[in-house]
Amino acid sequence: MIPLPAVVLEEVVRRALLEDLGPGGDPSGALVAGDAMARGEIVAREAGVIAGLEAVALAFHLVDASVAVLPKVREGAHVAAGTVLVSLDGPAAGMLAAERTALNLLARMSGVASATAHLVERLQGLRARVLCTRKTMPGLRALDKYAVRLGGGVNHRLGLGDGVLIKDNHIALAGSVGEAIQRVKGRVGPMCPIEVEVEDLAGLEEALAGGVAMILLDNMTPGQCAAAVRLVAGCVPLEASGGITVDNVRAYGEAGVDYLSAGWLTHSARALDCSLDMRGL
Amino acid sequence: MIPLPAVVLEEVVRRALLEDLGPGGDPSGALVAGDAMARGEIVAREAGVIAGLEAVALAFHLVDASVAVLPKVREGAHVAAGTVLVSLDGPAAGMLAAERTALNLLARMSGVASATAHLVERLQGLRARVLCTRKTMPGLRALDKYAVRLGGGVNHRLGLGDGVLIKDNHIALAGSVGEAIQRVKGRVGPMCPIEVEVEDLAGLEEALAGGVAMILLDNMTPGQCAAAVRLVAGCVPLEASGGITVDNVRAYGEAGVDYLSAGWLTHSARALDCSLDMRGL
Amino acid sequence: MIPLPAVVLEEVVRRALLEDLGPGGDPSGALVAGDAMARGEIVAREAGVIAGLEAVALAFHLVDASVAVLPKVREGAHVAAGTVLVSLDGPAAGMLAAERTALNLLARMSGVASATAHLVERLQGLRARVLCTRKTMPGLRALDKYAVRLGGGVNHRLGLGDGVLIKDNHIALAGSVGEAIQRVKGRVGPMCPIEVEVEDLAGLEEALAGGVAMILLDNMTPGQCAAAVRLVAGCVPLEASGGITVDNVRAYGEAGVDYLSAGWLTHSARALDCSLDMRGL
Amino acid sequence: MIPLPAVVLEEVVRRALLEDLGPGGDPSGALVAGDAMARGEIVAREAGVIAGLEAVALAFHLVDASVAVLPKVREGAHVAAGTVLVSLDGPAAGMLAAERTALNLLARMSGVASATAHLVERLQGLRARVLCTRKTMPGLRALDKYAVRLGGGVNHRLGLGDGVLIKDNHIALAGSVGEAIQRVKGRVGPMCPIEVEVEDLAGLEEALAGGVAMILLDNMTPGQCAAAVRLVAGCVPLEASGGITVDNVRAYGEAGVDYLSAGWLTHSARALDCSLDMRGL
Amino acid sequence: MIPLPAVVLEEVVRRALLEDLGPGGDPSGALVAGDAMARGEIVAREAGVIAGLEAVALAFHLVDASVAVLPKVREGAHVAAGTVLVSLDGPAAGMLAAERTALNLLARMSGVASATAHLVERLQGLRARVLCTRKTMPGLRALDKYAVRLGGGVNHRLGLGDGVLIKDNHIALAGSVGEAIQRVKGRVGPMCPIEVEVEDLAGLEEALAGGVAMILLDNMTPGQCAAAVRLVAGCVPLEASGGITVDNVRAYGEAGVDYLSAGWLTHSARALDCSLDMRGL
Amino acid sequence: MIPLPAVVLEEVVRRALLEDLGPGGDPSGALVAGDAMARGEIVAREAGVIAGLEAVALAFHLVDASVAVLPKVREGAHVAAGTVLVSLDGPAAGMLAAERTALNLLARMSGVASATAHLVERLQGLRARVLCTRKTMPGLRALDKYAVRLGGGVNHRLGLGDGVLIKDNHIALAGSVGEAIQRVKGRVGPMCPIEVEVEDLAGLEEALAGGVAMILLDNMTPGQCAAAVRLVAGCVPLEASGGITVDNVRAYGEAGVDYLSAGWLTHSARALDCSLDMRGL
Repeated sequence: MIPLPAVVLEEVVRRALLEDLGPGGDPSGALVAGDAMARGEIVAREAGVIAGLEAVALAFHLVDASVAVLPKVREGAHVAAGTVLVSLDGPAAGMLAAERTALNLLARMSGVASATAHLVERLQGLRARVLCTRKTMPGLRALDKYAVRLGGGVNHRLGLGDGVLIKDNHIALAGSVGEAIQRVKGRVGPMCPIEVEVEDLAGLEEALAGGVAMILLDNMTPGQCAAAVRLVAGCVPLEASGGITVDNVRAYGEAGVDYLSAGWLTHSARALDCSLDMRGL
Repeated sequence: MIPLPAVVLEEVVRRALLEDLGPGGDPSGALVAGDAMARGEIVAREAGVIAGLEAVALAFHLVDASVAVLPKVREGAHVAAGTVLVSLDGPAAGMLAAERTALNLLARMSGVASATAHLVERLQGLRARVLCTRKTMPGLRALDKYAVRLGGGVNHRLGLGDGVLIKDNHIALAGSVGEAIQRVKGRVGPMCPIEVEVEDLAGLEEALAGGVAMILLDNMTPGQCAAAVRLVAGCVPLEASGGITVDNVRAYGEAGVDYLSAGWLTHSARALDCSLDMRGL
Repeated sequence: MIPLPAVVLEEVVRRALLEDLGPGGDPSGALVAGDAMARGEIVAREAGVIAGLEAVALAFHLVDASVAVLPKVREGAHVAAGTVLVSLDGPAAGMLAAERTALNLLARMSGVASATAHLVERLQGLRARVLCTRKTMPGLRALDKYAVRLGGGVNHRLGLGDGVLIKDNHIALAGSVGEAIQRVKGRVGPMCPIEVEVEDLAGLEEALAGGVAMILLDNMTPGQCAAAVRLVAGCVPLEASGGITVDNVRAYGEAGVDYLSAGWLTHSARALDCSLDMRGL
Repeated sequence: MIPLPAVVLEEVVRRALLEDLGPGGDPSGALVAGDAMARGEIVAREAGVIAGLEAVALAFHLVDASVAVLPKVREGAHVAAGTVLVSLDGPAAGMLAAERTALNLLARMSGVASATAHLVERLQGLRARVLCTRKTMPGLRALDKYAVRLGGGVNHRLGLGDGVLIKDNHIALAGSVGEAIQRVKGRVGPMCPIEVEVEDLAGLEEALAGGVAMILLDNMTPGQCAAAVRLVAGCVPLEASGGITVDNVRAYGEAGVDYLSAGWLTHSARALDCSLDMRGL
Repeated sequence: MIPLPAVVLEEVVRRALLEDLGPGGDPSGALVAGDAMARGEIVAREAGVIAGLEAVALAFHLVDASVAVLPKVREGAHVAAGTVLVSLDGPAAGMLAAERTALNLLARMSGVASATAHLVERLQGLRARVLCTRKTMPGLRALDKYAVRLGGGVNHRLGLGDGVLIKDNHIALAGSVGEAIQRVKGRVGPMCPIEVEVEDLAGLEEALAGGVAMILLDNMTPGQCAAAVRLVAGCVPLEASGGITVDNVRAYGEAGVDYLSAGWLTHSARALDCSLDMRGL
Repeated sequence: MIPLPAVVLEEVVRRALLEDLGPGGDPSGALVAGDAMARGEIVAREAGVIAGLEAVALAFHLVDASVAVLPKVREGAHVAAGTVLVSLDGPAAGMLAAERTALNLLARMSGVASATAHLVERLQGLRARVLCTRKTMPGLRALDKYAVRLGGGVNHRLGLGDGVLIKDNHIALAGSVGEAIQRVKGRVGPMCPIEVEVEDLAGLEEALAGGVAMILLDNMTPGQCAAAVRLVAGCVPLEASGGITVDNVRAYGEAGVDYLSAGWLTHSARALDCSLDMRGL
């Protein structure tokens, strides 16, 4: 699995803590003595795939480095409701102050990973893989991409620079699919793959003629996708996109496409319900 | 309406652009001449409440200050599917490069505003108001809070510092509701209101005795909430929380509570579907 | 006591170090061998309340993590002139490079804490408490608020968002005290208390009628404050502000107000005189 | 006059705004309609030297670029109490939201400039000039240094890197004044002047023998300073430091030293009292 | 040409200005009256390809927005020694303060573009294109990549994430070229191309068998490269790397490889000599 | 030696890592198991002066704190080609992800140090010392200045604020060398030395008359420099600049000047060739 480097994660966790702590810290910390110690457990309140254990540890450590954070499951684990994910031991005030930020990160990341895993599970036995998009939460691109990987998906483009996806707007500006492909091809480097989005078999043939690294079948039915698969005959990977849900994903997979992408994995994933239970010492 | 200051918004938009643009800019810009001009329209592909028009303008301007961005609806408008939200006019390359970031911001903010408005609409004619929580997307607290306001909701705490919500963990650490209230009261300032979370009428009575600014009824049924309303008799505002949905929100509102809060407005809101259609000039 | 989270403090200490160190580091470090070790003691050269021991430790550690920093008094201690506050042991060059930044932070924070404590001491036996304002040093809001708490004061608003203080300008824009209160009340959330500033008993009555969480008596004499206290009769907390000094603070406190606020605690506090004495090993 | 570059100022103003605005903006903005316009005047409530007019303009513009900010005096002006410094015209909500930050910056910078000017005025007719130190407010080094210049003072070191001031600790580590000078001299560049702090005439002679760019007379009386001036006979500039106040500064100046430095100009300056008066349109 | 987005450039220019201006601004600005105006011309003192005109404009504008900056050549132009690149008109002090930063950016970016163009020119008439690497100046990745494009080169990977280049270390860890390819292939997304570095024809055959998007011929002679070209027969693009210079680049190009990469374009490019000549008004 | 403070270095290393890692981390990490361990050695592939060992350690630690980084030579060492500089031991994935950033920093810093050392070596036995300029790589000022020191050079100005170098443009604006000196002298502080650039002996006499801390002989031949040395007769240090190379530096040194400065040390230094060899465990 491709890990999330600490230096990247830290930027996000610091920012999240600072927006919650503000200039006043946590006044509820007034409730405990400065040296009061506590223990706590973070529990998954629903089943899912866990992502963000490092983010949790960092959130507590950046508030108070002496909070001991012990993961009880491994990153990427599929857990049942009620599973203890992390145990905590340390100063009560720091634990209270970092709680919400830690849970927000864990719930978001696990939510994305779990949504991805739902799609992946439905594809069992098929070759099709689940892709994410650039429709990520602003500021959380790296975490969203990592969570998709943990859920069993693979990343499509990480940012604008690492590939070109020729879409409607590009075609409108260039005049035709073929012209768009040619213009880009002559100017981008060899590590910048080109994909074209097509809406029907006519577009598909134009794309094939242009020569691209991948073709996106946009808003086609599984039946249309199957026809596209037959037409392409393995010459270039096919991605289906548009309206992919847990309910219809298998039909698309059975149509024989190589990839299925879904923007909602990152722009509309439901957070995984997690909570922290503390007790004094 | 309480506006979102430009200086706050700008931090978020810059960060979002930088994570998408990376060190390579937008290679699809190679497809158009450097001085090619284009027009475009951002369209809502489903009905909802629009939030983030300033974010859209800023996203385009920070990539290329010469893109003209003209809102066609006002911030907070309830629009039908197909409504043109923004028209654009300027350099094609800059428009392409900022497109995804602008749409991601608009879709997120409008998604939160629309989810809030759904709850607010169901409460029509009742006194109850919709509250958000601190379960916001990491790094997007200010935008999420603003989108809730645009959707007709009101903000609960903005961060840890501006109020104390005494919950399970605090009570466990302090020993009792009353003790928790007393400890906090003596130590926080007069602009830091104290709210207590209770799970039943016994807890409610203890909270009333302690004297707090608001009481949160956690995971109670509408019926239990109505009993709580009768018990409190207007002495202190009541907030109901836990499992509030579009389906049951009116029942809670009719129970007579003052506020209804829902974490999912910000941690699990569905993005509003928006797109940009461009054409060359 | 409400602590200052490490992540918040670190931002300030890094920035302070970077502006002093610049691109050339500390050329006086040329004076010692790279592996020369030293010991040092930070001493209070006047009596006061100590705040910023964590900031001191962080300043040394961010320059050279191997400097051992050992506090000799606890945060918030009232110390006499000549008291050793911190002992240091480690590389001489790092100690020299961080010295001024560490002392600047300690002197500022202890200065604010000590000024606050001066007011607090004069109020001994009275119910009135000392409040700070938003007139803090730009960029040091969190440290200033924390230092006030260490000095025995309580924080008023931490930022604009956590409460509304209706002042002259608001009243001028709204038309009247009552109108201002009504407009705000309908639009802010339940954790955003409203306070009104009044200049005489007529204004006080208007404020009482409007129903607010606190009333600020602006530039009134202790005698006028006492009249206000009688009028209000405990219905709402009263804050006196404007020209509060160490000399007159007790008179205000004896007038019976609940809070006394003084902007100078943070905008004009005198730094506490501290120094570092080093010796080679 | 050496100006304060916009890019340097902007960093500070953004940070100051963000810490005050937080994730909730200014809820008092709810009091006015979104398009309500207002006029305002910033007034000096006491006499002083004005510094920070650019900071004021920037604070308003970063919150709302459409607020017109018109300075009525020039930067560095000596003004009487009651002088209008700035007039404002624009959206009322933005004006309210930026008010406190703008005033905090203006009051701080004008306070430092005014304190400096007080010392400078007492030296009229003498050659001695007023110096600041590195005892500046953490994070505000550039603004403090600039305000000192506006008040008629000159800057000593801007940071650690641009000069070496050999003090007690350096001498303790090197073994002697002479040894300290020699070690530094061999290792720093030609644009890094060396100054030595001495406490008596014996130290002064040692410093003279070492050959330095300036000598600091620490905690000497005016009489001792005069003796030092005679001894040095113009070979090297002399700076007196330690306990310099408005009351004794002229005596030091008359002793013939070239520079007088005072840390309190920046670590303990009193803010200049300023306020903003608004009215609706 | 793929442009450099303003938001990306601005980060770099701000940082460069801040490290040069420091807390003291430009004391040489003391030499002119605050309102003194000047004109200036930036001149290329040697022939080359110009890159960074936007950076120059931004450097002046961030110090003083009223400096008018007028480019006299277009970005990417090949100019002769003595060509006027930019004319300036505005406040003298701001022009002086931004001069060095503006020139440093222009000289660096033009140096990289010119070095690239030197290689590109030597390949005239051949199909081979010039590639850059990730051996860029720390913090200047985006500017370096853009300058290479302006010089006529194309970008290889922008960062680690947008492709995999399997090198010695990867092969050592995986056990063999084939194993390395298989492990990566199964785990990265479809927009993440895989390239393998080989040192001889045996490695080349193993790479071909593995199926990759490109193969890098490392430290081979032009003769060995020609053999590789024959072996591969157009099945996969070939990149030659290692010791490519202006002198031998054409021999490599004539060997028939598709790409030639040179780390020194960005890690060791010579700055283009530029200067600013000012005169008062 | 004047060290590079950790807090300064860390800013640069974080930024460099973030631009390389991007939102996708290192996909080549997919090639090894998450817990795979490796050893590695960083080797100098050519002779030179080593600078940046702390940067290397930090680059690995910020990606994965458990990578053990052990320097095998000391900072500033002159090493032969093939020398092992650092040994590494820890998780393979983290080692791969940080490799390029660590090497880029090491190669740049060692390149600058080595270039400086080349000049310094040619001056053996002479009094002349090697100076750097402000022509540093944007964003790397502190690292470049430090590397020059490690190479045996001394730093000229660190930024604009710590000295004034009166050049052509200043003289053009002030009217004459003498006028320029006088205007600056009256306005800058005593720790801000003034140097004047002259082009011939007439200018030199004018500069001597004005009284400055140092004089720069611009673009003079060694013979002209020798004449200048005789004229000045030790009254003020002389710096020669313009076209200084490894070949002619000794001639300039023998002319008797005190300092020789060369912009190319930092704007055009060649990176030192280094590589990392890893093996699995």
